[in-house]
Amino acid sequence: MTKNVRPQSFKATINDRMMANGHKPLAIWFTGLSGAGKSTIADALEQKLLSEGIHTYILDGDNMRHGICSDLNFSNEDRKENIRRAGEIAKLFVDAGTVVITSFISPFEEDRAVAKQTIGAHYFLEVFVNTSLKICEERDLKGLYKKARAGEIDHFTGISSPYEAPKQADIEIRTETESVAEAVEKIWKIVQPLIAL
Amino acid sequence: MTKNVRPQSFKATINDRMMANGHKPLAIWFTGLSGAGKSTIADALEQKLLSEGIHTYILDGDNMRHGICSDLNFSNEDRKENIRRAGEIAKLFVDAGTVVITSFISPFEEDRAVAKQTIGAHYFLEVFVNTSLKICEERDLKGLYKKARAGEIDHFTGISSPYEAPKQADIEIRTETESVAEAVEKIWKIVQPLIAL
Repeated sequence: MTKNVRPQSFKATINDRMMANGHKPLAIWFTGLSGAGKSTIADALEQKLLSEGIHTYILDGDNMRHGICSDLNFSNEDRKENIRRAGEIAKLFVDAGTVVITSFISPFEEDRAVAKQTIGAHYFLEVFVNTSLKICEERDLKGLYKKARAGEIDHFTGISSPYEAPKQADIEIRTETESVAEAVEKIWKIVQPLIAL
Repeated sequence: MTKNVRPQSFKATINDRMMANGHKPLAIWFTGLSGAGKSTIADALEQKLLSEGIHTYILDGDNMRHGICSDLNFSNEDRKENIRRAGEIAKLFVDAGTVVITSFISPFEEDRAVAKQTIGAHYFLEVFVNTSLKICEERDLKGLYKKARAGEIDHFTGISSPYEAPKQADIEIRTETESVAEAVEKIWKIVQPLIAL
């Protein structure tokens, strides 16, 4: 499809952007069940990064489903494509010099591996928001688990579609014992040296 | 598809990002034939913006065809989808506070209108790089017109697929009479007040 399309090279490099921003870019890739707390921690982390003068942006699964991925459903194939696009967009933000935070269930190990490869392992930090299915289902903030149990939602991760937990996440957050503030502090301690010039 | 997905609201707003960056965001949307000079002007414009301390990034048609849009071909339907995604990604960059420059042939008026609506008319500046087909074909920097004339490339804009010129572009550049430096200066004069806080 792309044999007649050659990539363009532009003058501004990722190094120029690091120098302009005062920090290196990074993709902080959250993974975890629906309701695990990904977006809550991402939001608090973004506030922390902004307070430190870091250029940051959140790519959120729910928001992207309404925009760039509005043509996709929740079949395994479309989930794969959803995460492929998330990885490609995260890569663009990294290339633009941003510390991009992604908040997607991203249930399949293979798809997370593709995202890591797309973005570049050097710029990829995997954060496993490890909240048990039991707790997510008890919380059920959006009422989705109830619908999924009632068979009203197909392919629901944890109920009718698998969640493949990361075997070696860079950071693991256990929301059942760690507060949001503690989680943010834990992540920041690891992120800070990674993005320092 | 998205009835069970609710958009997330995050604490950081576009206003926070404007204040942090020192300027408003904007999408500078280039349109024009293959070989018209879009990427060359975009590159020079980005250098100018960076020299002014503006947070900027180029979304380029050729580069996106290798990444986020690698699943698409050049049929009218896929061109439409290519530009839809470009508009959605430009919107994310605008939301992140960036002056994003897009460099796509974007041949169809309807698709450019969709991009404008997606991004928001207030943040959308259309730049028509108006180089005649005759000149683009004479230049033929990538040898694509020759291939298209030989029937080796289907759906080639200007040859076997239409280019709908903008009727009311915000800026028109005529590369046959204006230099790259003149084009950049012309665009900057219009962009500067639009992004000033």
